[in-house]
Amino acid sequence: MACSRYEYVKGYEQDDRILPNVWIVIRIDGKKFHKFANTHKFEKPNDENALHVMNVAGIGVMQEFRDIVLGYGQSDEYSFVFRKDTDAFKRRAAKLLTYVTSLFSTSYVMSWPKWMQQPLAYAPCFDGRIILYPSDENLRDYLSWRQADVHVNNLYNTAFWKLVLESGLSNQQAEQRLRGTLSADKNELLYQQFGINYNNMPAMYRKGTILLRKRVLQFGQDEQDKGRQAIVPLHEDLIGAEFWRKHPEILGKYV
Amino acid sequence: MACSRYEYVKGYEQDDRILPNVWIVIRIDGKKFHKFANTHKFEKPNDENALHVMNVAGIGVMQEFRDIVLGYGQSDEYSFVFRKDTDAFKRRAAKLLTYVTSLFSTSYVMSWPKWMQQPLAYAPCFDGRIILYPSDENLRDYLSWRQADVHVNNLYNTAFWKLVLESGLSNQQAEQRLRGTLSADKNELLYQQFGINYNNMPAMYRKGTILLRKRVLQFGQDEQDKGRQAIVPLHEDLIGAEFWRKHPEILGKYV
Amino acid sequence: MACSRYEYVKGYEQDDRILPNVWIVIRIDGKKFHKFANTHKFEKPNDENALHVMNVAGIGVMQEFRDIVLGYGQSDEYSFVFRKDTDAFKRRAAKLLTYVTSLFSTSYVMSWPKWMQQPLAYAPCFDGRIILYPSDENLRDYLSWRQADVHVNNLYNTAFWKLVLESGLSNQQAEQRLRGTLSADKNELLYQQFGINYNNMPAMYRKGTILLRKRVLQFGQDEQDKGRQAIVPLHEDLIGAEFWRKHPEILGKYV
Amino acid sequence: MACSRYEYVKGYEQDDRILPNVWIVIRIDGKKFHKFANTHKFEKPNDENALHVMNVAGIGVMQEFRDIVLGYGQSDEYSFVFRKDTDAFKRRAAKLLTYVTSLFSTSYVMSWPKWMQQPLAYAPCFDGRIILYPSDENLRDYLSWRQADVHVNNLYNTAFWKLVLESGLSNQQAEQRLRGTLSADKNELLYQQFGINYNNMPAMYRKGTILLRKRVLQFGQDEQDKGRQAIVPLHEDLIGAEFWRKHPEILGKYV
Repeated sequence: MACSRYEYVKGYEQDDRILPNVWIVIRIDGKKFHKFANTHKFEKPNDENALHVMNVAGIGVMQEFRDIVLGYGQSDEYSFVFRKDTDAFKRRAAKLLTYVTSLFSTSYVMSWPKWMQQPLAYAPCFDGRIILYPSDENLRDYLSWRQADVHVNNLYNTAFWKLVLESGLSNQQAEQRLRGTLSADKNELLYQQFGINYNNMPAMYRKGTILLRKRVLQFGQDEQDKGRQAIVPLHEDLIGAEFWRKHPEILGKYV
Repeated sequence: MACSRYEYVKGYEQDDRILPNVWIVIRIDGKKFHKFANTHKFEKPNDENALHVMNVAGIGVMQEFRDIVLGYGQSDEYSFVFRKDTDAFKRRAAKLLTYVTSLFSTSYVMSWPKWMQQPLAYAPCFDGRIILYPSDENLRDYLSWRQADVHVNNLYNTAFWKLVLESGLSNQQAEQRLRGTLSADKNELLYQQFGINYNNMPAMYRKGTILLRKRVLQFGQDEQDKGRQAIVPLHEDLIGAEFWRKHPEILGKYV
Repeated sequence: MACSRYEYVKGYEQDDRILPNVWIVIRIDGKKFHKFANTHKFEKPNDENALHVMNVAGIGVMQEFRDIVLGYGQSDEYSFVFRKDTDAFKRRAAKLLTYVTSLFSTSYVMSWPKWMQQPLAYAPCFDGRIILYPSDENLRDYLSWRQADVHVNNLYNTAFWKLVLESGLSNQQAEQRLRGTLSADKNELLYQQFGINYNNMPAMYRKGTILLRKRVLQFGQDEQDKGRQAIVPLHEDLIGAEFWRKHPEILGKYV
Repeated sequence: MACSRYEYVKGYEQDDRILPNVWIVIRIDGKKFHKFANTHKFEKPNDENALHVMNVAGIGVMQEFRDIVLGYGQSDEYSFVFRKDTDAFKRRAAKLLTYVTSLFSTSYVMSWPKWMQQPLAYAPCFDGRIILYPSDENLRDYLSWRQADVHVNNLYNTAFWKLVLESGLSNQQAEQRLRGTLSADKNELLYQQFGINYNNMPAMYRKGTILLRKRVLQFGQDEQDKGRQAIVPLHEDLIGAEFWRKHPEILGKYV
């Protein structure tokens, strides 16, 4: 019963190394998280604690895979950007994709009880995909796309749930009320009807969460000691140029 | 801040649909599970409870993804076979690969406390790969390869840990004692020195765990009711022809 | 000016080895051959000599690449089937694809003057594609598809050009006359209006050309001599089972 | 005999669209051109006419495929660079690869009699490959690599054939004489022994041939007429920055 007779099947594995010198983005998405959110009674339109679980899972991934220079999370999705010249796992697509997806998944489950009252009713599931971006501009546009997406969705959802939860409209009525409205209209509605200045709402809801590696200085630290590295969550605009001026290390050398 | 300006980045996702009419095998492997086993003080050479966690995670995957016709687990790895003509997720490789890997990962973590005394010290991580096999013979050879592998490893490990734990040899001494020995030698050593008939050891350790879908009849059931489907764990030889005669549905129509 | 500084660019070539144990089909198609046929005044609906040029080019490819077990040509296309277990060029897709396409292309140009009166007005161009078929049934269905295609097209074209060239209809009138007709209608039209029994027309036009490797015996040959191998053109039905019974070597061992 | 039953086989073709925003390089190489050169008695170390055949074939390719911004030929190989944002044939890899390879091949055969005395003894064959380069620097390094290659080879070959053809050394003796020599040594040998200043040898041999698109003004032309575009062969250094300053259109907008 030697292995050798069957070992030829190893030869059926195919090489999936990623082209060098391109940005590697891995995006994780929750599978059927609409139902998952309902089952676990997430607060509408944003459940702060559920977002913390996502963020902590994202931080877990970045602590393990050092070549990730940026994470970006919103709603039930998280994107991770590997530096352009990473050679982690020889750039093998399946390795990178599954390690990130698996560790995000297990970290999510393990972080859950620290933030959520209700126990997990069933095992959550995430899909992951790899997208390659040749230029820095492509990468910035990708992240801008995701942040523009959270803006559009969150403004809508904020107005929608105000109408449902506070004005007593049915889901259908709220939908109808918002159909065809522009951003300005929804801002106005929130302000006039509910006294809410949308721009004062929590930045995490409006901007999503950006995870960056930063040196963290500590009190009493020796001058020679450059501080240890930490994963820092930010809730800023990343579409404008300012963000990229402040954090040049993302597109430059990895930290 | 319309999305539209950035949406072109969606066009960078590449089509990864798998060739029709081939067996799709997804294999999950624990990342650095040697260390993981030590940290969590797994029993040597086999930790029955830790294997149960793996099996329960495997069952979770098969309950969710109905086009998986067979699962096979041993040590820290699990293989899943999708039926040849599955159209699940349009056969997109990354979708299939990450859903299976993610659900296996979260199910593993969630099942852990039911079987293991010690809490998880950190989030475990699994990689996954897809391998395609055009013929039934290729598929059988793949599974035979994995089962031959568990045999070779388990016989070695059984002898190794007997020498270390019962005869007081150091790891190096045990390694040296076994170097160059054939299966017959190791069987003989176990019998002569430890009174163990290797073939009487638990089949789960020697053969791994095969997961199949089977109709389960229930007492008092209506005749019209064909019983519900269950995922049944078996610890049998799957290299010989007998297994395939007994379970023709694996290679035939999915159940 | 050493090469070494630049040699890293070699690392950007990607592995494109084809999955083992699948049929590799390469199909060549003429680029804009409608215009090419007009420029070179091909006879309508079939130019026997132009088809000979195609066939001779196909034979040239099969003489060079010994792992091709079958060629099939019709109109301006040619398909080549590599045996399932070929290891030619390590199954690298681009190598197989371009060698076949290039040699077909150059052989076409070189054979042209032997069959055609008019010199080539410009360089013809062919595209090529690779398609993989896991099962024998898939392969047969592929070839049946191409032969059904030549039947449908040739019957139509035969009727069309009879109406145009002999009945003096314009192209539009002929098109209109044939719109919505079934095969039986077109057969009937040919018979009634032009006294033509379609099934008596040249088999090469109706069935295309199948190229097979066969042992050719020669007069006075030694009994021990098994004859040399030749590429033999056939114009037969390959959709029915009979063809495959007569030529078992195609699906079996290569000759 | 409807096609429909078999048409499912079309679904086995796989999408091979190339990632957007990367340079697409296609390199053609002669198959066994060492033997081909001997059969057709190419002059050593360079056959000017044979190189012209290559160049004319390259020009033929660039005239047909307008998105190629640069061609580079040396010895029996030719590289073509498609502009980064080309959408020719929807960036399908096999289409791009085979069209270029096929047209190069047929153009080579058709141009042959205009330059070569001896008729073609058999159909030549070329392979083609696609390589993707994300950055302008990668692309320049690729071209530098090919031009450094022609320098190294041509200097060696020039010295080698001088030793064989003029000094009467055998091939082995010439090889041995040159083993381990640096560029400077070979330059010196050519100068001392044969009175040759290597840098005065024809630039086409030393630098290869660069094909660029340029506006060509014509005598008596109307001022409004910007001249027609022509494919212009150059034999310059492309490794240094000067070339790229002179021809900014290559990396910029396509012409």
